[in-house]
Parts: sequence; C-alpha cells; structure tokens
Amino acid sequence: MATKRYENLACSAARALEVVGERWTMLIVRDLFYGLRRFDELQRDLGVARNILSQRLASLVDEDIVVRCKYNEAPPRYEYRLTPRGEDLFPVLLALMAWGDRWSAPGGPPVVMTHTACDHDLAPLVVCSVCGEVPLPRTVHARVGTGLRSEEGSPSPPGGGE
Amino acid sequence: MATKRYENLACSAARALEVVGERWTMLIVRDLFYGLRRFDELQRDLGVARNILSQRLASLVDEDIVVRCKYNEAPPRYEYRLTPRGEDLFPVLLALMAWGDRWSAPGGPPVVMTHTACDHDLAPLVVCSVCGEVPLPRTVHARVGTGLRSEEGSPSPPGGGE
Repeated sequence: MATKRYENLACSAARALEVVGERWTMLIVRDLFYGLRRFDELQRDLGVARNILSQRLASLVDEDIVVRCKYNEAPPRYEYRLTPRGEDLFPVLLALMAWGDRWSAPGGPPVVMTHTACDHDLAPLVVCSVCGEVPLPRTVHARVGTGLRSEEGSPSPPGGGE
Repeated sequence: MATKRYENLACSAARALEVVGERWTMLIVRDLFYGLRRFDELQRDLGVARNILSQRLASLVDEDIVVRCKYNEAPPRYEYRLTPRGEDLFPVLLALMAWGDRWSAPGGPPVVMTHTACDHDLAPLVVCSVCGEVPLPRTVHARVGTGLRSEEGSPSPPGGGE
C-alpha cells in the first residue's frame, strides 16, 4: 500500500482503534454477538475483573456501540445489546478471528463458524466490493480524502512517506 | 451469531487480540503497510513516546509480525518490515478502516484507497468465501472446533450461552 504520510489521528483505523482498540472491548463485543447479554454472564465468560468490565461497558455505551436496557423492574436488572454501530463490527471480528485461525491456532480453529445461508463452514474473505478480488497491499493506493482536508488545519505535506 | 459459551482464551479473536489488541500495535502495522520503515519515521508519524514505540516494536518482532533488518553497517541502522504473518493483517486493517469510515468520519474518509487492480475506490467487504454473500450475525452459527477440544482440559459445558 503506497501512500504519502498522514497525520496519525486522521486515519479511520486510528479512529476505530480509539473506540475498539482495547482487548476487552472487542471481546465484550464478541460475547454480545455470541448472545450473552447480562453483566454476570459476560463477567464469567471473560474472567475479567468486575470494575474493568463496568468501565468497558460504560465506555461502549458512551460510544454508542452498546445499549443498556432494563429487563426487570424490581429489582432493577439490566442487559446489554449491540447498537447498529456495534453490530457493524461483525466484519472486523470475522477478519480478526480468521487471522487468529490462520496464525494462532496450531490445533485447528477453537471455534468453527457455519454460514447458515449456504450451509458451509465460514471462511471469511475481505474483497473489493467492485471487482470481488482480494485487495493486496501492493494493489491498494491510499490518498488524502475529504475527511482529512476538512478536519486538519493544513493537509500533511506531500513530501512525507517513504 | 448463536453459540454455546466458550472459554474466552480459546477463541481466535482473543488470541489475535493478545497479539494486536493494542492501539499502537495496529497503528504501527498500518504505518508499515504505508511504507514507513524506520524508527524515526514511525515515531514522527505516530507521535508516540520513543520508549513505547521501542516496546511495541520489540513485541511485534517477538510475535513474528515484524522483522528488524540492518540497512546500514557503520553506524548500524535498522529498519522494520512486516513478516508474512504481519502482511496477513491487511484484511483486518481494511475491515477496521471501513468501519471507521462508516461510523467515525463525519467529514468523509480521511484516507481514500484505490484498488489499482480494478481502478476503483476501495470499499472492502467481508464475504463468505463459498457463496460470496456478506455473513450477518444471524446467518452465522458458531460451534466448538478441534482447537478447543485439543487444547482445553475439558471442553466448555454445552449448557453455557444464552
């Protein structure tokens, strides 16, 4: 992937990582995809300290990735669900799991996913939505977009990069 | 995505996050895809403290994601490159950037990528490699795989989950 150098924080990967770039955060999101909903379920599954889980859930709610809903009135009990913004992390999670399966699973994938739409084991693939090919670093060129121009005081100098 | 509950650390997402689940780590990987190679270039672009960058690079080398190569003998100078395992994080980075573009880029994408193979702006899509459809949480079912069976003392109880 050839490009000029850009200010770090203007990149969408950096912005995404501001939100989900913390291990527990993404694992909480994964557990919510798995159908876990309640604090105690999440805490038990993740084995994370309760105060850490509370903090992470609160920040996921702040970031509009998770919504906290009351499911019982007396005593008040809450459960957690993904928002549309949170649900849209599914492709990121699939790409991450696929990488882990390829490189960190010597005994085979610990979790096998079936794509029930076609009834095959799911091997997710990141493709170009236009041509359907798998983009490789050498076939992708990055350039400054409107988001950078409109938000930075001055665009990064074109002489940056390699 | 329906499933039984699994031990946290056996999941490939958890394992992947053990390696790359830290904001600077993924941004270093991104910069290496951008063609930055040298410590000072990375440090300048990321605006990260030198000791943090050193630590993260050392751990990326330990994890076989980055390789450190000497490019000058006297004085000794080193540069950093992605290994095959590191290069294979490209789909994860693309999925992450696409999410950031959709949800954290009100002024438009800060960085636009062109897929030079088809000469269109790249909108990466995570699809099922068999049927080509986009897997949705409701069309994906997860079950215990060989990696979990072979590595855990006892598999997770089937009664877990929702």
